[in-house]
Amino acid sequence: MDTTTQRDRAETFRRRHTDLADGPLVLANAWDCASTILYEDTGFEAVGTSSAAIAATHGVPDGEMLSRDEMLAVVRRIAHSVAIPVSADIEAGYGDSPDAVAETIRETIATGAVGVNLEDGVDGPAGPLVATDDHVAVIRAARAVAEDADVPLVINGRTDVFWRSVGAASDRVERAADRANAYADAGSDCVFVPGVTDLSLIEALVDAIDAPLNVLAGPGSPPVAELAAVGVARVSVGSGPMRATLGLLRDVADELRTEGTYHRMDNAIPYGEVNELLAASVGRTDG
Amino acid sequence: MDTTTQRDRAETFRRRHTDLADGPLVLANAWDCASTILYEDTGFEAVGTSSAAIAATHGVPDGEMLSRDEMLAVVRRIAHSVAIPVSADIEAGYGDSPDAVAETIRETIATGAVGVNLEDGVDGPAGPLVATDDHVAVIRAARAVAEDADVPLVINGRTDVFWRSVGAASDRVERAADRANAYADAGSDCVFVPGVTDLSLIEALVDAIDAPLNVLAGPGSPPVAELAAVGVARVSVGSGPMRATLGLLRDVADELRTEGTYHRMDNAIPYGEVNELLAASVGRTDG
Repeated sequence: MDTTTQRDRAETFRRRHTDLADGPLVLANAWDCASTILYEDTGFEAVGTSSAAIAATHGVPDGEMLSRDEMLAVVRRIAHSVAIPVSADIEAGYGDSPDAVAETIRETIATGAVGVNLEDGVDGPAGPLVATDDHVAVIRAARAVAEDADVPLVINGRTDVFWRSVGAASDRVERAADRANAYADAGSDCVFVPGVTDLSLIEALVDAIDAPLNVLAGPGSPPVAELAAVGVARVSVGSGPMRATLGLLRDVADELRTEGTYHRMDNAIPYGEVNELLAASVGRTDG
Repeated sequence: MDTTTQRDRAETFRRRHTDLADGPLVLANAWDCASTILYEDTGFEAVGTSSAAIAATHGVPDGEMLSRDEMLAVVRRIAHSVAIPVSADIEAGYGDSPDAVAETIRETIATGAVGVNLEDGVDGPAGPLVATDDHVAVIRAARAVAEDADVPLVINGRTDVFWRSVGAASDRVERAADRANAYADAGSDCVFVPGVTDLSLIEALVDAIDAPLNVLAGPGSPPVAELAAVGVARVSVGSGPMRATLGLLRDVADELRTEGTYHRMDNAIPYGEVNELLAASVGRTDG
């Protein structure tokens, strides 16, 4: 992707985090080119990748068990398959130091992605959080790499205080907000606090954080309109859509194996229509 | 994968094409490790890949638009992600000559796959069929490579007479059977005739073909029990399951974008359950 295209996509994407006249920025989360192209076709403004979902397509659990190179190979294909901004979930940055994460950011920018999620939880889904200052250093390093590349990369600093149930429940808003504000000061354009579905807690986070807030939504979450009403800037859905397709696939598989019938495939997109959708996308992009 | 494991899987898979005491061999068709592992978990004896579905995950239409290397990289991951036989859909073999296809077969065996589909249609989904003798030469070459590698590779010679509506409808059974019998004589263990859903035509094919018959099933096809009753040996579902997941994903995406709600994700497999399924698979295989 040429730099002008990438810079334009990054600027469009960044602007949308503060220009909320049309409501929050709603990101659909993709794991391959088919899901990405379908989201673009459905009218989404931007797509985020889901590291958990991409890891699953490679047969491994979430949590940096897939290598940086494998993850970024998928991100590259996804970013080149559509004409809308793509933000990459790069977990904790695939490195133990700000320098190592900086290299990941350089390579991520080279994929054509215009945003990154960078999380402060490590060592698998149940691991601890890194120290706030360490994650601040990582975000500073990421911002420096983006400035050096002259791409206004949208950094989405993520804190897993709620996701990993860190500390007492009563302290979590303050704990998450302290981290979020430190990440925003370090150059994070948006902050991501997954694992909160209670609207009053979400509102408390919006009030306590001096940056656009991204929440993770799915079954059990308030609808986008309610999130908008309390000031959420960005809504994403993580691995939910991919896990929904796995739920259907399990039903398809169970029916085929036990009944020998095919009803759960009735809503399939026809073969010719899938091929047309893909061919149109190949013609529209450089992918 | 070590050769003994691969040979065992190939023998198990091959035997199942003629030992129909438990009914036809029903293959679920996969496109990534998540779908493959889910099928194994559901109890399938074997998995076939779908070239159309794998192409879609890379953002390109069906019909050898994805390169051999890209296709086989996915097949390799899939074959190593489960402990059951995996058969690879390698389209027309990615080559214009028997020698070129032979090289594809060598590389396919090296992925750990124990079966291949080799089709006689070329130049995209609407292209022509190659001459019967040319496809016979390709199948002979594939058989020779498998014997050389000492892996009893299950070759599934495919004719697209019905799939591509070749010639007059009244001649198709004879035309397909002539090709199928020539492919079987050349070393094809099974023959695949996709594009037929009429049970009387399927029965006519079984009667006219001197080899196990594979049909493509999906919505509109007779149930497996009816296919069994007329003597079908193998049933596969092609890109149907993947296109079914895309149908659901379109609904999920439409709902999220227009309603801002998440009900179509209600049947998602929970995050923790997906990770457990994947972790168990990593422990059970060398993938």
